[in-house]
Amino acid sequence: MLPKGNFPQKVYLNGEIIASEDANISVFDRGFLFGDGIYEVMVQLENGIFYKKAHLDRLQENLDKIGIDFDVDTLYPEIDALIEASGLSDASCLIYMQITRGTAPRKHSYPKGIAASVMMYALPFELPYINTKNMKAITANDFRWHRCDIKSISLLGNIMTNEAAMIADCDEAVLIRDGKVTEGSHTNIFFVKDSKVVTHPANEHILDGITRKVLVQLCKELDLPLIEKAISFDEIPNTDEAFFTGTTTQIASIAQLGEHTYYDGNDIGPITKQLREAFAKLKDIDTADITL
Amino acid sequence: MLPKGNFPQKVYLNGEIIASEDANISVFDRGFLFGDGIYEVMVQLENGIFYKKAHLDRLQENLDKIGIDFDVDTLYPEIDALIEASGLSDASCLIYMQITRGTAPRKHSYPKGIAASVMMYALPFELPYINTKNMKAITANDFRWHRCDIKSISLLGNIMTNEAAMIADCDEAVLIRDGKVTEGSHTNIFFVKDSKVVTHPANEHILDGITRKVLVQLCKELDLPLIEKAISFDEIPNTDEAFFTGTTTQIASIAQLGEHTYYDGNDIGPITKQLREAFAKLKDIDTADITL
Repeated sequence: MLPKGNFPQKVYLNGEIIASEDANISVFDRGFLFGDGIYEVMVQLENGIFYKKAHLDRLQENLDKIGIDFDVDTLYPEIDALIEASGLSDASCLIYMQITRGTAPRKHSYPKGIAASVMMYALPFELPYINTKNMKAITANDFRWHRCDIKSISLLGNIMTNEAAMIADCDEAVLIRDGKVTEGSHTNIFFVKDSKVVTHPANEHILDGITRKVLVQLCKELDLPLIEKAISFDEIPNTDEAFFTGTTTQIASIAQLGEHTYYDGNDIGPITKQLREAFAKLKDIDTADITL
Repeated sequence: MLPKGNFPQKVYLNGEIIASEDANISVFDRGFLFGDGIYEVMVQLENGIFYKKAHLDRLQENLDKIGIDFDVDTLYPEIDALIEASGLSDASCLIYMQITRGTAPRKHSYPKGIAASVMMYALPFELPYINTKNMKAITANDFRWHRCDIKSISLLGNIMTNEAAMIADCDEAVLIRDGKVTEGSHTNIFFVKDSKVVTHPANEHILDGITRKVLVQLCKELDLPLIEKAISFDEIPNTDEAFFTGTTTQIASIAQLGEHTYYDGNDIGPITKQLREAFAKLKDIDTADITL
């Protein structure tokens, strides 16, 4: 029995598509015991799953990073079947996928010869053509691990930080590590300073988001100079614009970041606006097979 | 169906004691989706559960740290019932407990009004009176988060590091953060230098283990000077003895730590030996109600 809430109708679990309330895994699944797994979130739009291949390539890379032996290519038909069984073939929806190392007696080191567990679901989800919400964010100490490049389900640091943002009646928390801005609790962050776009380099302190990668490409196409370097906490008031990126966030202008106010009302900076519009247009084409 | 392996016979799950193969939780449990939970491991010996109250007090403290609303006191009779149902009332066994925030639609921030999930099991487990194994350990970069004081199930950093130790044919990995020794992947570490016992202070970079706390007390009782400060990586060759502590490890002498050899064979340092023997004697008394 599930509590009340916006659960999907169906769940794909290890080869079967079943009702959500029947989607149970063993308590000995290493996802439950150790947070030993990788996840991915994609959205299906009118022209198919947005940057599907880019997401699934990243899922494979992440599984490889932590030595979970699983071939993501096998999931392509399964995703189609899940979306169809969920009655979402022609609908906007969010697709959540999680692969864990599998079920074994509890022991830290990796068990041999077990099958990975695969859980996926599709949920109706409407993405605005342009995200016009102006975001408010707290700044918070980035106390997460030093392998944020791994899209792992060991997310306690992220959820604690996100909760702090919600308590402060904000939309997101912006993380500061060693005096430098890294990323949001579940988004990447970009700044604009002196007409240059600036974002943290894709190293072990941030997740290299698919939308982040798209933005890097868009900047090139739009001849906007992009610098991959960390903005320091003290530099924030000297930046001209700031925005979050993410699969469900898309591009979201930041109005307030910690003590610094970019805009009082619904204003938006010119470069954020330009990128937001260029990004929206990508949804008019089929991006499913694009490699990033 | 569980794969082959040393699983317990019974699992306590949310008020019920059931066969392990039936112990399933929803894929929407936040333990599975976010590693959003706390765990605890205890051992039952001839005189009852070793430092039971100390373990359960710590479990409560940890749940409070991450805002999981659960009263650990309610578990005392449930643990007894589990051990009895498992046929382990008079047996040496290990008791594993895990409490997660509960089941809700996937969203980073904490859902309101849901019940925590409780999973526990007891497994036959024989602890030697004295652990005479001399351990070999690698040193590894401590890339975990900065809240290692929280005994969370978001353990991917720990298991990656433990796996690296196993691949190197070692027993444990000793973690180095900013040039300082913090702890093992699932143990605390103590050094002896110039007849003084030295261990990392109980701050946010280590878990304050129950056995660690017992050792701190034992040092006082034995008039052994104890210094709570981090040993630097470069100092390791200048230390005289080193040992791991942990609930299942007890006190384990370290023969080899990274490049440094303490002992070639089964030798053990005099202070490690003294502490190991004093620790063993604690098992001759009932420690269940002691507060640490």
